[in-house]
Amino acid sequence: MAIDELVRRMRGLGNPSVIGLDPRLESMPRHLAENAKTLSEAADAILEFNKALIDELWDIVPAVKPQIAFYEAYGWQGIKAYIETVAYAKKKGLIVIGDIKRGDIASTAQAYAEAHLGPVYGEDFSTVNPYMGEDSLEPFIKVCKERSKGIFVLVKTSNPGSGQLQDLMVLSNGVQMPLYESVGLMVKRLGEDLIGECGYSEIGAVTGVTHPAQAKRLRELMPRTLFLAPGYGAQGAKAIDIADGSIVNSSRGIIEAHTRSPYKERFGEAGFAKAARAAALDMREDLLCLRI
Amino acid sequence: MAIDELVRRMRGLGNPSVIGLDPRLESMPRHLAENAKTLSEAADAILEFNKALIDELWDIVPAVKPQIAFYEAYGWQGIKAYIETVAYAKKKGLIVIGDIKRGDIASTAQAYAEAHLGPVYGEDFSTVNPYMGEDSLEPFIKVCKERSKGIFVLVKTSNPGSGQLQDLMVLSNGVQMPLYESVGLMVKRLGEDLIGECGYSEIGAVTGVTHPAQAKRLRELMPRTLFLAPGYGAQGAKAIDIADGSIVNSSRGIIEAHTRSPYKERFGEAGFAKAARAAALDMREDLLCLRI
Repeated sequence: MAIDELVRRMRGLGNPSVIGLDPRLESMPRHLAENAKTLSEAADAILEFNKALIDELWDIVPAVKPQIAFYEAYGWQGIKAYIETVAYAKKKGLIVIGDIKRGDIASTAQAYAEAHLGPVYGEDFSTVNPYMGEDSLEPFIKVCKERSKGIFVLVKTSNPGSGQLQDLMVLSNGVQMPLYESVGLMVKRLGEDLIGECGYSEIGAVTGVTHPAQAKRLRELMPRTLFLAPGYGAQGAKAIDIADGSIVNSSRGIIEAHTRSPYKERFGEAGFAKAARAAALDMREDLLCLRI
Repeated sequence: MAIDELVRRMRGLGNPSVIGLDPRLESMPRHLAENAKTLSEAADAILEFNKALIDELWDIVPAVKPQIAFYEAYGWQGIKAYIETVAYAKKKGLIVIGDIKRGDIASTAQAYAEAHLGPVYGEDFSTVNPYMGEDSLEPFIKVCKERSKGIFVLVKTSNPGSGQLQDLMVLSNGVQMPLYESVGLMVKRLGEDLIGECGYSEIGAVTGVTHPAQAKRLRELMPRTLFLAPGYGAQGAKAIDIADGSIVNSSRGIIEAHTRSPYKERFGEAGFAKAARAAALDMREDLLCLRI
């Protein structure tokens, strides 16, 4: 099962983190970005950047999470770089979480699920959006069962405006609770018969580290659900506030480490991949207080 | 403004419909599908299918709505066919609604918005998912303002399970209402300063025709919002039940008309594009009871 492979790697490396591969040309080292004038050249620069990062990260982090928007933005050439990034990371033994946040009616969700968790994209996990209800998630769950893959369903996201809908109080089966808890309970139920030998379900939940009280409440409600926790670093959350059983994401904090102190001075622009490695090791150290 | 162009075309053609270009190899005429063994050949078949359909539809329907999942499923080659389909439809004067249902934190949403509503994809409208809140929609709205484009926000979707989250009763600013109404009011507010000369806002709403009572209630709440209404045809909704001010989508009912009576007998497989035209004209006739 994908979840067992992921949790074993997290435990084996003593590292509950995932590095977001969200490449932005404007923060890339100049020697890579300066010639990226066309979509095709931009895609080439992204792939070269990612490969150098993966070469420095594969032996210390369990997983990478490419955010597909930053590839899709460069047209089909960008999607090609996305697919090649996934393949390269897999070849190095990394678990790949495709951050795609898709969600649609069943026949459409099926097309997404079979491609992303199948041979076309080759992700181990995809993120999905629950707004359209359970029947929009079922095609993903079917593919998870058939191919030993996993998903992370958006429950409580890390952005400042996440509460606008997600925190609304709802009446769910006669009980009053915030919408995100109601979604959390649905995710728990959907994952109940997909629990692996490491104790977690193939059906995980996205819970931002920027909302520690909510994440801890969700941890109580869904003890067998691994949390994919974005928002670490830039948004100032402390490791001690993160719920146990989380895989914590950092994107810019790691892959753009060469743009800020102390990594900038230590590694320079040309040493961006070594800077990312150093930042990833510092993050690992910080997260050792978490139980996986 | 994109919304004015769309509404003018709807009124000019007397046709409040949009054709969903959701190509599936298994329902395509054999002469197109039979040689599509690789992703690249599948993408070529899709593009040829779409161009033939567009050639027969551009002068009778105002818009097309490619569902990106059915292209993304074929990897980067599929995305290339998507981009080429959008360009071909635009060249023929059709308005293009990219059914992408994206939704993410602001920096990521910005990457999606600038690409899909900008030169990379070239859509006139994109569909977006509101689960992450207003700050996830703002980058799209910013691009709508800068480039005279539009979006349709998922409010009440057409799938059977849509009610699971969307119908939950919430307390929104002290008033009890279903979640979808609360989202509807947000969409209304976000679109208030983007109303065009035809009376509708650049910020539209997706409201399935399968939920007529809810759509009519939303019509009262948001009189200046154009509704993108999926679910016509296959799911048995009648034209008389559809809210005024809707652009009604049909996908399989039109582009797969050659697989069912009476079009199958009249046009045969080779006449799939003429069959689609006949089905689109029948749909137009059915929808004449609607006010645009």
